[in-house]
Amino acid sequence: MTTAISLAGPDDLDRVVSLMERFHEERGQPFDDTHRRKAAGPLLDGSPLGAIWLIGPTRAPLGYVLVSFGWSVNRAGMEGWVNEVFIRPNVRRRGIGTEVLHAVTVALSQNGLRALHVRVDRDDANAQRFCDRVGFEARPNLLVMTDTL
Amino acid sequence: MTTAISLAGPDDLDRVVSLMERFHEERGQPFDDTHRRKAAGPLLDGSPLGAIWLIGPTRAPLGYVLVSFGWSVNRAGMEGWVNEVFIRPNVRRRGIGTEVLHAVTVALSQNGLRALHVRVDRDDANAQRFCDRVGFEARPNLLVMTDTL
Repeated sequence: MTTAISLAGPDDLDRVVSLMERFHEERGQPFDDTHRRKAAGPLLDGSPLGAIWLIGPTRAPLGYVLVSFGWSVNRAGMEGWVNEVFIRPNVRRRGIGTEVLHAVTVALSQNGLRALHVRVDRDDANAQRFCDRVGFEARPNLLVMTDTL
Repeated sequence: MTTAISLAGPDDLDRVVSLMERFHEERGQPFDDTHRRKAAGPLLDGSPLGAIWLIGPTRAPLGYVLVSFGWSVNRAGMEGWVNEVFIRPNVRRRGIGTEVLHAVTVALSQNGLRALHVRVDRDDANAQRFCDRVGFEARPNLLVMTDTL
């Protein structure tokens, strides 16, 4: 089975926002559509800071993947952070997520990205297992510290 | 005491590379000048993926701060990662690092950044203390996983 992915553009805003709503609801994240439009809009409009891929048929997508981009001094090149991965509940457990993350990884690698990171909860064994299967390696020694501005 | 910071541009490449060499040497990082030019050049040339500030007099800087930029869905806006902070050994222990990181934080906040992150080693109590003093909060539950492309 091969599930196509396609880079989402400005015309996909409503579709993306509607999928994000499902994702945020499922995770209990308190964002509204205004927030989602502000978060997704710039990436769909071509911001160099990230990209969104739709999974499956673009008119009725099965989900999406949102990656933000950054710069790595150690790698002297671009790196990415997988921010959100959503697959509609009725098509889960078929390996689509794994397949799609592989496809995104290949696309980003061909575009010169040196590494892809993901932040998961230390207690979320499911997310860690999924990321591990896709090729991500845990870096338990690394501590993230944050200053909210 | 106030230590000025100034955004480094294309003309500062040699100065930045020379400071980075000291930083990488001190930390035992095996990068050469070719790597450093590739890592710093795009940021000095105006890449939206990051910025470098020189500390003190630009002709004879006391150090530098390198921040990479990214996109946060949760914050619906830009965020940054402090990648490197270097202060010349002979002017350390005067609070310059703290002061300079505050100045960078203010500058980035005025430019709309929502958060600043830093990755430190879990065993590096000094780095954690420094970051804590500057206003960063440890997020021990967050696990980073990486896929090198």
